[in-house]
Amino acid sequence: MKQSISLVTLGVADVERSAAFYRALGWMPAMEIQETVFFQANGVVLVLWGRDKLAEDMGIDDTRGGWGGMALAHNVGSREEVEAITDDARKAGATITREPAETFYGGYAAGFRDHDGHHWEVAHNPGFGLRPDGSVEISGD
Amino acid sequence: MKQSISLVTLGVADVERSAAFYRALGWMPAMEIQETVFFQANGVVLVLWGRDKLAEDMGIDDTRGGWGGMALAHNVGSREEVEAITDDARKAGATITREPAETFYGGYAAGFRDHDGHHWEVAHNPGFGLRPDGSVEISGD
Repeated sequence: MKQSISLVTLGVADVERSAAFYRALGWMPAMEIQETVFFQANGVVLVLWGRDKLAEDMGIDDTRGGWGGMALAHNVGSREEVEAITDDARKAGATITREPAETFYGGYAAGFRDHDGHHWEVAHNPGFGLRPDGSVEISGD
Repeated sequence: MKQSISLVTLGVADVERSAAFYRALGWMPAMEIQETVFFQANGVVLVLWGRDKLAEDMGIDDTRGGWGGMALAHNVGSREEVEAITDDARKAGATITREPAETFYGGYAAGFRDHDGHHWEVAHNPGFGLRPDGSVEISGD
């Protein structure tokens, strides 16, 4: 696993309200699609997405408590890497919340929870540019 | 506020156990100091720190529930920026959990919670290198 955080996703109750908040702080979205807002930051991308959708996509049971609604994503260049990192995480003691599978956006992703309940997605998204250091590029410019 | 996430801090129950987990996944710390582990990633830095210490430092009441133990940090080049961004966040509807004040590490920081309970620290840390894009450099190499 490369040392990279590709995306930080904030699960929110109201995407518009949250986007207005970050806009008020000076953040300008690079892309808004399917009620998801992407802000290109310094390598890492900040994403606003419905908390219920994020939980469902990541295999998180949000009724059990303990999850704050945030998830980190580690993007890679192939499905094989998604599977290899998921296996490594499992061996290291992570709880796999989403076994590697195709995603609704045409990618391939898995999800795990570390010992302290912090959630990671490991994803291959052919629609995103992936820099050598593991950063993704949303804006395309 | 520049579009940057300088650090992602995972509040953990046992820093050694958590560090062992991330080491098993291939992450190598750039620095370990005062029971805090820093991993230099792609611009952003991943930090492991005791959840109780993180909560105390950020002014988070961890008994009220809702917080998952994760915090984002936005580092800036001066105390004045810490204050200006905190004011902007307050005007945008954030809850200020830590008014701008000196930190134990010789810096100056504030903390706020957005509408969905996601926590940000706004910090000036003279001990960290700060790149033009808002990324911090821990390793110094």
